[in-house]
Amino acid sequence: MLAMTVNIALKHEVDNSYPIIIDSLQKITLKTKVAIVTNPKVAGLHLAYLLEKIEASEVYIITVPDGENYKNLESLNIILEDLFNHRFNRNSMLIAFGGGVIGDMTGFVASVYQRGIDFIQVPTTLLSQVDASVGGKTGINNRFGKNLIGAFHQPKAVYIDPHFLKTLPKREFAAGVAEIVKMAVTFDKEFFEWLEKNDIHDEELMKIAIEKAVKTKAWVVAQDEKERGLRAALNYGHTFGHVIENETKYTKYLHGESVAIGMTMANDVACELGLMTQDEAGRIKKLLEHYALPTTYDIVDVELFYETFFLDKKSSDSSITFIIAKHLGGVVMRDDIDAELIKKVLTTYKES
Amino acid sequence: MLAMTVNIALKHEVDNSYPIIIDSLQKITLKTKVAIVTNPKVAGLHLAYLLEKIEASEVYIITVPDGENYKNLESLNIILEDLFNHRFNRNSMLIAFGGGVIGDMTGFVASVYQRGIDFIQVPTTLLSQVDASVGGKTGINNRFGKNLIGAFHQPKAVYIDPHFLKTLPKREFAAGVAEIVKMAVTFDKEFFEWLEKNDIHDEELMKIAIEKAVKTKAWVVAQDEKERGLRAALNYGHTFGHVIENETKYTKYLHGESVAIGMTMANDVACELGLMTQDEAGRIKKLLEHYALPTTYDIVDVELFYETFFLDKKSSDSSITFIIAKHLGGVVMRDDIDAELIKKVLTTYKES
Repeated sequence: MLAMTVNIALKHEVDNSYPIIIDSLQKITLKTKVAIVTNPKVAGLHLAYLLEKIEASEVYIITVPDGENYKNLESLNIILEDLFNHRFNRNSMLIAFGGGVIGDMTGFVASVYQRGIDFIQVPTTLLSQVDASVGGKTGINNRFGKNLIGAFHQPKAVYIDPHFLKTLPKREFAAGVAEIVKMAVTFDKEFFEWLEKNDIHDEELMKIAIEKAVKTKAWVVAQDEKERGLRAALNYGHTFGHVIENETKYTKYLHGESVAIGMTMANDVACELGLMTQDEAGRIKKLLEHYALPTTYDIVDVELFYETFFLDKKSSDSSITFIIAKHLGGVVMRDDIDAELIKKVLTTYKES
Repeated sequence: MLAMTVNIALKHEVDNSYPIIIDSLQKITLKTKVAIVTNPKVAGLHLAYLLEKIEASEVYIITVPDGENYKNLESLNIILEDLFNHRFNRNSMLIAFGGGVIGDMTGFVASVYQRGIDFIQVPTTLLSQVDASVGGKTGINNRFGKNLIGAFHQPKAVYIDPHFLKTLPKREFAAGVAEIVKMAVTFDKEFFEWLEKNDIHDEELMKIAIEKAVKTKAWVVAQDEKERGLRAALNYGHTFGHVIENETKYTKYLHGESVAIGMTMANDVACELGLMTQDEAGRIKKLLEHYALPTTYDIVDVELFYETFFLDKKSSDSSITFIIAKHLGGVVMRDDIDAELIKKVLTTYKES
């Protein structure tokens, strides 16, 4: 079995590098009070398995409802209250046990509880294993959009155990594949071509893909921990995707699914700009569709869709920065794309 | 007129050093959208004066109710909602204009808004000028205690203008003096003796005292930005003070007043431990009382008072760390003080 450790070394702060361990979970010994933050579904499926591995002075379980709709200030406060009730202190530790929602929210709680305590991530979905496990982004949603309130807070360690993926619904698996495809398209043509040839439903191939995606993301984040430059490239597909999630109130699509649509839209823009050929855009679409990922979306109101970009945090005062894949394995950030060109592409998605 | 700049150079992170300017406010030019966060009272007294100095692309004023009771998650959310409504983005800037409550809350908003935006501090009370202006601590209260939710987030600059102190009520001025005395007792015997001889109600002497206190605190914070060691010394008087604030629900005493009582209690413990003479404790008490600061408190229930220490974030798993001044100009952190000794001291404050 492939077992690997990716060490995330961050330049910005000296004391917050951390290991990502891709392997069956081994014994984790913690000499502190620990709270495992999870949701009822993950707890039912996998908590016994996790608890077998955790050794700590005291262990508490905190569950919050499943889903993006509950990734908000109220849930944050519920977790905080639980921690205060159980007298957690600055030496205590949180374990985020679930998908991206649990990871983002637990990380944010850890960042603000008594001005910052440690946390560990045990991601249980493919998406959170390849995406949320690297980067230190934490946060919650509000009525204005997704991840609009948050912090950069690095975990002490990330444990990626393929065991958890056995119970993952097909759609959620595919949503994780979308982020893997994203990394390949923007940074690694060879990896993209490998993905075209290898179906990562196979467990051994999947582990190789996870390793590849995590390493690529780790490299990007190490260049730019606070998202001022290169790291924005990771938002390929996300600028469009966030609007879609916002419009559909986080209920219709999984995050990775909306990113799949978003990448397709971004590729159409790339074609218009001459940065990508129709053939390349078609190959990406084909790969996404092979995993049953959506690549179309019915836009009701093009103007409203366009306007919603400005609520997204990646936009700045008067322009929106679009992340556009350049052929295969390349990426550019463009804040000078004509609104009409974007709207022209959006119109091709208009509800007929 | 004395005009000075203290440069806060932090080792921990490379890009967040900032200047503290002690002088009449000069023109501040900001090329971004700006929100001045303040309270109705400060706004009424001084907003016109501040607005004359601010040049920005757009300026918004956000007021929140005055007082520790409003330094909570609800107020935080109100400010956040305002910023989203006005489409603030990652390049926007906040100005904290008021005392410690406004500074702590605005700083915390800045730290979580879209995972962190810049803010400037314009403190209007003596306490916030000498204390909250250095250190990067931000946060809010909840029903479990004070500053229990927060972050470390450094301002881009702090402007200390003595002009604002002209309208400051006497009690609030004295509360600021308490923190100045704290710095002198724990770190600078010469400064303490200077304070015994010089009444800092005099404006020129007051500015010297602010400079001295800010420089001392800046030195301490630079040694220990994230409060893992030396910086805890700044909590001299605070461990007791927080319990007093908690018991009196932040209404009876100003923060500096409860710290004055807390220092007196800590000194009594120091005398019991042989770390301070009765004469030294008496001199500190006399200095505090010269500024009409309280040095007594009626404890209703010694056990309950003691128990409340454990809710304080400075406590760790099974022991409480007390910050004890050692004679004049010295300080020790002790987590091995016998509970009975502490309770013996507390009993001398018991309601008769």
